[in-house]
Amino acid sequence: MARRDRILDAATELGARADLDHVQMNDVAKDAGVAIGTLYRYFPSKTHLFAAVFEAQLGAFLGRLWPAESEDLVNDIGEALVSLSQELLRRPRLCAAMVQSAATNYTSGPFGSAERDSALFHAILDTLTRSAPGEEVESTVRLLVFSWWGVLISRLSGKTTAGQAETDIRLAAHRLVGPLLSGHRFP
Amino acid sequence: MARRDRILDAATELGARADLDHVQMNDVAKDAGVAIGTLYRYFPSKTHLFAAVFEAQLGAFLGRLWPAESEDLVNDIGEALVSLSQELLRRPRLCAAMVQSAATNYTSGPFGSAERDSALFHAILDTLTRSAPGEEVESTVRLLVFSWWGVLISRLSGKTTAGQAETDIRLAAHRLVGPLLSGHRFP
Repeated sequence: MARRDRILDAATELGARADLDHVQMNDVAKDAGVAIGTLYRYFPSKTHLFAAVFEAQLGAFLGRLWPAESEDLVNDIGEALVSLSQELLRRPRLCAAMVQSAATNYTSGPFGSAERDSALFHAILDTLTRSAPGEEVESTVRLLVFSWWGVLISRLSGKTTAGQAETDIRLAAHRLVGPLLSGHRFP
Repeated sequence: MARRDRILDAATELGARADLDHVQMNDVAKDAGVAIGTLYRYFPSKTHLFAAVFEAQLGAFLGRLWPAESEDLVNDIGEALVSLSQELLRRPRLCAAMVQSAATNYTSGPFGSAERDSALFHAILDTLTRSAPGEEVESTVRLLVFSWWGVLISRLSGKTTAGQAETDIRLAAHRLVGPLLSGHRFP
């Protein structure tokens, strides 16, 4: 396995077992079998590391479960986003570490990593532009990703129940994507 | 002026002039005319301080500009959220400090402050439940707040233009709130 992947795997395991504050870069390096200097060359901070873990998990999910062909895009996108949340929330500590890191990267300004959810953004955008090209598509996809992100954070921080989180995601897909597709689902 | 308000005012001024990392709690205490121990008794960290500045700004805005009576709620809520964003973004450094702090508080778990955007959540909820009571209202309001929050962060970090941000907010109000009100705007 490539060193970068070994590092991401080690971080994933450690992040699932302890809160982000208690994950030590030294332990990540040891478990990955790389020198600490090597680890920092790949990921200059714990934030960068766990933002990359997030991207890797997102990429794996999208490759595996994203609806390629669909006769009911609104429903299928909604269910895919529900599944993605459930999968991420199965390891709440790791999920919190990834979300905190990705959010910090994202909010730390235009020179931070802009890649936080670009894989998700582009997966939805690609799917929708095939069915409903137009100016509102990008705006719709941004709003759907923002909504999903908000649902995940609220659930993580215990402000909503699992049921509310799923209702919210399905409603977001229905309300945001629905009007885009109605009437021209098969252009 | 009460000490807490003097502290918030001093933080607002300092946060508008320097990045959050460079705002010193000592300077906040000095400008507010309070001892450093007093400052920390009110706000145990810079994050708590700027999350409170955010809540204060939100509260002031809502008291001043939130649509109380409306014949076109979808439009008026959309425009109020656009105005709120514009007002916050007028001082981008301060806005970034508030957003980073509020997001950190919010994502730091169920025991962090849950009050980040509750004022905004409740203002929209109160307005909508008068016109469209029902189970979907809370879900709708959460999605609208998540969307608004995402738009603000994306704009702050330079990932969208001012025009895109406004389009996104108006589209969110239209798509999310519209269906809730159609047919029963005046119950």
